Parts: sequence; C-alpha cells; structure tokens
Amino acid sequence: MAARMFALALTCATASALLTGHMSRLRADGRLPRGFSIGTTGLSFSPAEKPAMNAKMNMTLVVLDEPTESFAAVFTRNAFPGAPVLVGKRRMAERAVQAVVVNNKISNVCAGSPDGPVADSERVCAALAAELGLAGGAELVVPCSTGVIGWRLPVAQMCAAVPALVGARQRESALPAARGIMTTDAYPKMRAADACGGRIVAFAKGAGMIEPNMATMLAYVLTDVAVPRDALREMLPRVAAASFNCISVDGDQSTSDTLIALASGAVPLASGSAPLAEFERALLSVCAQLAADVVRNGEGVRHVMEVVVSGAPSEASARAIGKAVVNSNLFKCAVAGNDPNVGRILAAVGSCAGVVLPDVPIGGASIRIGGRSVFEDGRFQLTGDTEDVLYAYFKQAELPLHAETPCDEGFPFPPHERTVLIEVDLRAGDARARVLGADLTSEYVAINADYRS
Amino acid sequence: MAARMFALALTCATASALLTGHMSRLRADGRLPRGFSIGTTGLSFSPAEKPAMNAKMNMTLVVLDEPTESFAAVFTRNAFPGAPVLVGKRRMAERAVQAVVVNNKISNVCAGSPDGPVADSERVCAALAAELGLAGGAELVVPCSTGVIGWRLPVAQMCAAVPALVGARQRESALPAARGIMTTDAYPKMRAADACGGRIVAFAKGAGMIEPNMATMLAYVLTDVAVPRDALREMLPRVAAASFNCISVDGDQSTSDTLIALASGAVPLASGSAPLAEFERALLSVCAQLAADVVRNGEGVRHVMEVVVSGAPSEASARAIGKAVVNSNLFKCAVAGNDPNVGRILAAVGSCAGVVLPDVPIGGASIRIGGRSVFEDGRFQLTGDTEDVLYAYFKQAELPLHAETPCDEGFPFPPHERTVLIEVDLRAGDARARVLGADLTSEYVAINADYRS
Repeated sequence: MAARMFALALTCATASALLTGHMSRLRADGRLPRGFSIGTTGLSFSPAEKPAMNAKMNMTLVVLDEPTESFAAVFTRNAFPGAPVLVGKRRMAERAVQAVVVNNKISNVCAGSPDGPVADSERVCAALAAELGLAGGAELVVPCSTGVIGWRLPVAQMCAAVPALVGARQRESALPAARGIMTTDAYPKMRAADACGGRIVAFAKGAGMIEPNMATMLAYVLTDVAVPRDALREMLPRVAAASFNCISVDGDQSTSDTLIALASGAVPLASGSAPLAEFERALLSVCAQLAADVVRNGEGVRHVMEVVVSGAPSEASARAIGKAVVNSNLFKCAVAGNDPNVGRILAAVGSCAGVVLPDVPIGGASIRIGGRSVFEDGRFQLTGDTEDVLYAYFKQAELPLHAETPCDEGFPFPPHERTVLIEVDLRAGDARARVLGADLTSEYVAINADYRS
Repeated sequence: MAARMFALALTCATASALLTGHMSRLRADGRLPRGFSIGTTGLSFSPAEKPAMNAKMNMTLVVLDEPTESFAAVFTRNAFPGAPVLVGKRRMAERAVQAVVVNNKISNVCAGSPDGPVADSERVCAALAAELGLAGGAELVVPCSTGVIGWRLPVAQMCAAVPALVGARQRESALPAARGIMTTDAYPKMRAADACGGRIVAFAKGAGMIEPNMATMLAYVLTDVAVPRDALREMLPRVAAASFNCISVDGDQSTSDTLIALASGAVPLASGSAPLAEFERALLSVCAQLAADVVRNGEGVRHVMEVVVSGAPSEASARAIGKAVVNSNLFKCAVAGNDPNVGRILAAVGSCAGVVLPDVPIGGASIRIGGRSVFEDGRFQLTGDTEDVLYAYFKQAELPLHAETPCDEGFPFPPHERTVLIEVDLRAGDARARVLGADLTSEYVAINADYRS
C-alpha cells in the first residue's frame, strides 16, 4: 500500500518538486572548476561483429587550457584490461597530460584492427591532438572506453567525429559529460565540493559489472586546486579504497575500471599539511557520494544496502565480510522482496569469516538491521513482530523502477537516498569498514539476459 | 521455435516416455545396499517466530542393522555452523554410529530452546535411540537439519513423530529418503553404482544456497562394501573436493553443508589397494553425478554451465577461475537469455586471475564455447555468424521451467542432462579443474525474494 501511494505521488506534484530539486543540484554541482572545457558528440556505426545492427556511440572530451603535471589515476586489476587502460598506464609516466577522451558502447578489450586495440585507441588520441593543436601530440591525451567487451572500435567514424567533438566544447558545466559517458545508466551521476578556495567536480558512469577493485568503471575528478602531482598520486588510491572500492552492484569487476583526477592548478594551494588534508577530506566526500550514486543507479536496483562491519581484526577482513553480505545472491533477492531474512546475513557472514578469519571465534557477534537487534551474542533475537517491523523498514527504503520515474529532462532521477542499514559487530577487534551494495531483482536479470540486442 | 516444439513435445507422448525412463532409473538406483532400512514421516507445527504460519516438516531416518565403525563425513566451513554440524563433528569421534535423522524446513542454526540449539538436536537423537532400542544411546544417532536459518526446531512435535518415523521403515528403496529431505528442490536426486561386489547409493538435497566449501547442503552415501574406517575417511574429502566442491548454484555457502558416508560392511572387501581404488572410482562417479543433479535442479535453473579450466599453474587457481565464471552474475544472466556474451567470460576470468594469479601472464589464453573458438592468443574470434551459432547452442541446452514439466509421480524431472560447455585454456601450466554452475533467472529471484511466505 505504501508503495502504491508512493508511485501515485510520483506521478503528480511531488514528482515535479523532486525533479526540480534534483536538477537544481545537478546544475549547481556541474559548474566546472577553472581551466577546463568539455564537449560531447554522437555518431552511428555498424559493429563489424553484428553488421545488421545500427549502433550509437557518444564521445566525450575533457580539455585543460594548459597541460598539467598534476594528474593521477587508478585502474582495474583485471588480467584482461582494455586497451585504453594499457595506454592510460603509459600516460601516467608522462610529464603532463591535457585531455581525456571517452567513448561509450564499446570497451575496446582484446579486439581491434589488424594493428590491435592499442593502436585503435592511439589513432583516436592522435586525431584529437591534431584537431586541438596540441604541440605534445597524442601523448597528452588519455583515452577511455566502456561498453560491450569483444567488439572493435569504429576508429574511422570516431576520427571523423573529432572536429564536431572539439567544436562542441563549453566552459560552464560538467553535466553534458556526465550524460555523455552513460551506457545502461538511468541518469547522470555527478558530485561536487568547494575546498581550499577552489572546486572539485566528479562524475562517473557504471550501472552493471560493478565491483571495482581499484576504481569504478569510469570516474573523473576535475579540480582547479593546485594539488602537487605527488600528493595527488598518494591520496587518490586512499580515497578510491574508501569509496569506489567499497561498492558492488553485482560482484562483477570490469575490464575498464578507471578513476582519473586532473588538477588545472588555477587556484594556488597554501603550503603545509592542513590544506592538503582539507582537500583530501573534500575529495573523499565527493567520491563517496558519487560511489553511492553508482550503486543507487545500478541495473534494476530497488534497494541500496549499507553494511557496516565493526569489531573486526583488520579493515581488510571487515571489508571482505561486508562485501560477502552485499554479494550474497540469496540475501540480495530477499532484500528485493522486502523479506527480512536475517538467516541469510548470518550465512554470508559465516561463510566469509570461515575463509578469511578461520581461527577467529566470532560466536559473540551481533547484527542489527535499521538499528534493531536481530542477533546478539550468538543467538537470534526474533519475536513475533520482528518480521513486520523489518518489512516496513525495507519497504520505506525501496526505490521505484526507473521506468516508473517520470522525467521531463530526458532521464529519471533517484527520489530519495535512503539505504537498508545492516550493522555487523564481530566483537573480535577494532577495525571497521562500510560497504554499499544493491539488491537483485528480476529487472537486473532482464537487463542482462539480453543486453546487446 | 526449437523451445516451443520442445515444450509441445513434453506435453504428449515424449514426456510420458521420458518420465517412464526417469522413474525407472530412480527406482533402479534406489535399491538399498544390504544392512540398511529407511523411514520417513511428516508433521505440522507453528514456528515460534511466525505463529500464524502452519508449517510442514519431513523427518527422514536411515538405520543400520548393526552399529558400524566405518563412517566418515565432511562439513561446512561456515563460521556459524548449524547445531547438527556441531553434534555431527562430535559423533565423528565416536567408535560407531547406527542411524542418521534428517529434518527439513528449519536448519537449527543459532536459535533454540533456553538450553540452546545443540540441546534441541540431542533431544531428537535421544528420542530416536530410545524408540529404536539402541543400547549405545543418542551417541549412535547423527542429526541433520536444513531449511530456514534463525528459527527454533519444534522439538516436542518432532519427538512425538518418532514412533511413526521408526515404524515407517522399509528395506527396499532409498527413494523415500531422497524425497523426504527436499526443501525447494523440484525433484529427488539420487545416484548409484555397483562396485567391489556390493553397492553404493547416494542421495542429496540442495537447490539454493549452494556453493559447498566441504560438501553440498546434505548428501548421504550408503554402501554395504566393508571399506575400512580409515580408508573411507581418507577418500571422502578427496571425492568431495572433486565433486560437490566443484559446483555452485548461487555462490552462497550454507551453514548446514554435510556429506556423510555409512558402510554397513555386509559385503567383504578384498585386501590390497586395487579394490579400494575401484571403490573410490565408483564413489567419485556417483558423487559427481549427484553434484550435477543438484545444479540441474538449482532454484530457477534453465542452463547448467560446465566450465573446464586447463593450462593453469595449479588446480586451486583453475578451480577459482572456473568458479569466477559460473558465479559472474552478468554472465549467468547472459546464459539465461541464450546471449553468447563472451566478453563477460573474459571479464570474469581476468578479474579472478588478477587476484589469484597476479604475476602470471595469461594474455595467450584461449576460450571455446561448445567446441567453437571465440578467443585465441589474446584476441576475440567473433565473426558475423558467431552469435547465431552460439545462440542455437545455448538454446539446445535450455531446461524447461520445473512448473512446465508434466509429472504424474508428484515431482517433475530433468528432460535432459546437456550443459553449456565453456573451455578456458590459460596456457600457463598443466593443472586443470571442472566446475559446474547455473544461470541466473527471474525465477531464481522470484523464489528467493519471498522464500518463507
């Protein structure tokens, strides 16, 4: 009943107010830091592997006014990384970069022209460097690709689209880029903060194949704060570990995961450790919010799970146990059905602990859902009304289907940011971790059972 | 079209012939080894945690004519094992056992009367020992439970049902036991072999929460061959590792996983290593077939995946990579939709290899589906007809929904035992492993989104 009222509400005035608020936030967050311009363009092509298909691709371009030495990135640990990841790792050794080009639709992994997928990525970079008149050439351009794995990049069509891409640049907002990099994403994901007298804007894509081991599929951080190169490279992996590496939509790690940070340096940074710490706090806040956006927008997601594991012997074991809960297909299904099946949490915790903490007794653990104790000192605390109370708690955290969310702006939006909070206290140490995950719905199956047709 | 013809065929004469064959096999396989009797009975109760529910439970009993010293078991490694697992581990230290009692519906994990869940299990064992007149008492009885985690065992009602359970025993067939231990299983799973002049019969339950780390949820091997206790205890973990530990339905490891082998000793075993090797081969064959049955009957399963990983540096890494493929939700969904999304296989292999083989180059790997090469020496081999050919291959391996399978005998049955074969050659060593898994369907989600209502 609550769901029906909610759905009804979303079709009338409330939806309009929510949408206005959401768009206001996106427009405000999108304001670019100084020193950046952004362009996007679209193109059509027929994949060599599926000639009858008329496929559409977006290209997105981020350009710095001047080359910068202050850039950092973390990449997927997948043993079959995409060609752009291989090229991107090389670029990290360069003295400076000045542009990032992103395409969706095809991820450029292990497939390509006779010269190979790396050569295909380099050709696109070279075309861009020429059009932008970059004296340093293709080495100043970082390529990124996301989409179907196994198909070839339509290099000729992409190079032909480069003049339009460069000509489309503007200096106002990152929102077109957040939209341009989407694949199965329902809406753009962007977060921002002001820090150290400058600005941080970050946007990401990723709705499926999300369990980053280094970074989410594709995420970009732009800032005008003059963070030194070494400091940026030291803090970015730390921030990724506590944000993007703590989320999972489906436990599937991508071949393209890439997080890139670019600093234009237009805003000087005061010396000393305090300004750097302020910047890192703001960066972490932005990335954590963006990571939550990625989960909330996950394929078919109706509930975001927030699992806080405390009392662990180490942060790594806390994170592993949190991941085990959010990746348990059985528990994910239960959450989708608003079924407070606490036994499945215990099974997931115990299964993981049996592997990562085989010699640590955790029989005195406790579990709380939405603040209510359901397991204490090795025994379930389930009374006749537990299920009703928890059902209502799960229900209020439900998101509507994207298809049910009305939208005047070309994409739907999340009507709330509530989570299903699960707290696990192992009572076996002082370390803790917070992991976000998603439920598993019939919509997820439907989206992924016929992704490419 | 092929699926529709298949479905039509199943509604008429072909279905009848298939069912007759299936039932003939089950009846033949079910013939008990010498020295065993089996009984089952049902009871009703209201769970303390959900008083308005009228729940039904089966109790199943296996009794040896004489106590045997030749018994062995492997149990779950979950850090929150069920009380029957704790009791079962104690029983393994006893000189002899004479009976096994199994209940479905409630797994007796971390919930129980004021004396605790172990005391609840022991009470049921004591009632059985008394009714059977076992001089050795409850220590001769091994308890097992499967079902909802977190609910209390209805001990009083179970003890009241013990006389009916003991009275129901017969010496003909294990089929009633294979049916009695079912929960969400669609049909009974039982396999048998003749070996060393005697017989091996094994049956199992398990349709969800299936990724055994030691054994499947509940599986029982009965034999009349007089395998010495030490030999049985040495070979059972080996057999479990190569059969039940190589399957996954949903990646969720149970709190109850138990595999028990009981030898009545009615058929003497010749001395020497050859007869023991013959017995182990037969035991492995029976357990491997039974493990495949468990996957085929997994919740909502429409395709069984068979992943053979070769050329690996170690058997453990081969098995991990095989498990990564069958546990990739994205690939599981693709298989469900007959979508030959080979990129998702590569992503899963690469994601796992990046963790378990971080320093081993596997860029020269190859992948075949149904014998057709799709990835060779680091490059995809996808031509215009690849998808059509693979679609047809996936389609012919599809299983009908259990609900669509006609059945005169009270349960449906698997109309074929075809798999989707995926061969991954890492070209990085000599070790190999074979892993069975299941696709991920909307039916799985529906079953598990509201399991208990």
